[in-house]
Parts: sequence; C-alpha cells; structure tokens
Amino acid sequence: MIFFQPESRDRSVFPHDPLKALIAPRPIGWIATMSARGELNLAPYSYFNGFSSSPPIVGFSSEGEKDSQVFATETGEFVWSMATWELRDQMNASAASLPRGQSEFAHARLETAPSRLVRPPRVAASPAAFECRVTEMVKLKDLDGSDSGRRLVLGRVVGIHVDPRFVRDGRVDTAAMRPIARGGYDEYSVVERVFTMPRPA
Amino acid sequence: MIFFQPESRDRSVFPHDPLKALIAPRPIGWIATMSARGELNLAPYSYFNGFSSSPPIVGFSSEGEKDSQVFATETGEFVWSMATWELRDQMNASAASLPRGQSEFAHARLETAPSRLVRPPRVAASPAAFECRVTEMVKLKDLDGSDSGRRLVLGRVVGIHVDPRFVRDGRVDTAAMRPIARGGYDEYSVVERVFTMPRPA
Repeated sequence: MIFFQPESRDRSVFPHDPLKALIAPRPIGWIATMSARGELNLAPYSYFNGFSSSPPIVGFSSEGEKDSQVFATETGEFVWSMATWELRDQMNASAASLPRGQSEFAHARLETAPSRLVRPPRVAASPAAFECRVTEMVKLKDLDGSDSGRRLVLGRVVGIHVDPRFVRDGRVDTAAMRPIARGGYDEYSVVERVFTMPRPA
Repeated sequence: MIFFQPESRDRSVFPHDPLKALIAPRPIGWIATMSARGELNLAPYSYFNGFSSSPPIVGFSSEGEKDSQVFATETGEFVWSMATWELRDQMNASAASLPRGQSEFAHARLETAPSRLVRPPRVAASPAAFECRVTEMVKLKDLDGSDSGRRLVLGRVVGIHVDPRFVRDGRVDTAAMRPIARGGYDEYSVVERVFTMPRPA
C-alpha cells in the first residue's frame, strides 16, 4: 500500500489531492439560499449528506465562506434540490463564480418553483427537494482546537417535495431519478441501477 | 409534486421514510474504532462524508449512540476503510448487532491490517483507508436548540493508504475500485463508470 500523510504536502506520489477521489460517490447538495435583501443563490456542494433521520437533519460545507453559507446563516433557511443526469449541465453551470446578486438560476437557465415553508425556491425541474431551516453553523476545528476556517451548515428538513412519477407503491424509485454524484478531479457518477442487500439481524 | 412535512409523521403517502432514498448515493464510512480497553469495533455508516479538504476532515453520524461513537470519543481515533463491490457481503455482515467486545472483523471474516499512526486497524482487503484523529464530537441540535440525541464525530485525516494497483499517473482510478454507496430501503449502488464535466471558470 502507498502511505502518505496529508500534512507533509508531498506531491511526488499524488500531484492532485486524492481525498475526493476516495470519498466517492458523494451526493450533491444543490443548495438554494436567499439573503436578507432578497438576493438568490444556487450552488452545488458535494460535502453534503444527511446526518440524522429522526429528526431529519442534513448539512453542507465548503472550502472558504461562500454565499450559500452566508445567506443560510443570515436568514436561517436553505432548500436542497436533487441534481440528476438530466440536469447535469445546468448543475455544473450553477457552480460558476458569479458576482453576488447575479442569480445562478438565470445563468444556468433553470426555473425556480416556490417553496411552501421557506423563502428560497427549489429547482423546478428537479424531481426532489427539501425545504430546510438552519439548526446550527458548526465552525470545524482542526486538531489543535483552532478554527479551520471551514463551516458546516446544518438544517432540519421541514418539507419534502417528490415528483409522483418516481413514486411506486409508496417507495421512491431512486434509480429512475438518476441522481448524479461527485467523485475526484472532474469526475461524476450516476445512479441508474441499484442492488439490494437485506440488513443482517 | 407530492409535498409532505416529516414532522406530521403522515404515513399515508410514504409508509417508509423516503429521506435516505432521496439523499443518494451516500458514501459508506466503514469505521474501525478501539475502546480504551482494546475492544475492536467495525461498522458501516452512510451518514458519512468529507467536510473539508484542507485541512482534510471527515465525519460520521448515526441514529443513537453506537460503539463506534463511544470508542472514537473515548480514544480520539478512528479508521475509515473503503467499502467496495468485492467486499459488499463482508460490509453488510459487519452491520450486525454483536455484543460489545465481539469483533465484527471476525464475524465478517475480514482481516485487519495495522495502522501507522493510530491504534484501530484498517480493513486489510480494502483498497483505501484513512487514519483519523477526532477533532470534535458535535451534538446535533434540533430546531428549538435542544439536543437531538444524534452525534456527529469529526476527525482529521492524518494518514492515507491507497492500493497502488488503482493509481495511474498520480491519479486514483475510483471506478476501478468499485466503491459501493447506500441508497434508501435495502438499496445500494456501485460506481463502475464515471463521466467528466470540467468545472466552469
């Protein structure tokens, strides 16, 4: 096995950091937020996941402070929309760095659909979305207890939208939605098939 | 769109909670921990992801307090191993509820390989592993600020093991490792192919 310590920053073996190629596939948090002034932001985060089912808590983090984090902290709300194979180009376009106040929805040619319980909209074309209220903003610590500068925004899912075309017998057909996920480098994967393993007793 | 509020606990539309079928695919945190007394634990977590690349921080959480969380908090160390298609049955077997002190490694017929910097071992057959030191244990809050009872264990990656058979020109070939990921219900997916999209400027 190759062994290396990230803190050595030795690039002889891995010219590019292999971390994201190893924690894969990562679900994409396509996060819509709105500032107190009403500016709308949409951005994809792959440091995103659920953290608890009951209560339903999800969260996203990023390198450095981004508009999504600022807006979510400011107004206490965010909306997650599922990124799919069909929406892959729009998802990628929404990752562009635009000046604050310029909407990634417009830039990526995506329509918004109003939320029921929070102000930020969902991506209208996405088959699933969560309306979320911020529960806390965690300042991630480094080993010595110092602030790493990274922020993890956590929120409770207060409303769930699901396109009924992907619901069969009360179950969500994930594979039919074709969610895309992030890998390392410029890589993505798509779920088009699943296999099952019953949980052991 | 179907809309429902999780707190209503209305099971007429979704007899089973759809949350995990919608946050998919989730990378699997196959977490090895050791208690202060030397008891070894191995368990899969799908509420797992990276949260920061620099410094490299990963974390896992679960419903209720599990041995992994107790041991990681007790000794400040955990090791992540990648769960792959080849190891799917062993991964699933390691999810069994065993009495404390009985090793899931033995139960799942998995060999351990020693770590370099921390005490818990990695899964010898896995193509990638991270040695981690706990940076913090976050008690996830609910909306009213109360303790949800859920725990998110965060750690800094201090050592990375990668099987050189999956490294080409300094890049990790994720698809060749065939990592498996969790969906909803009894569903899993596997990454065997990737597609690329260059990040917009």
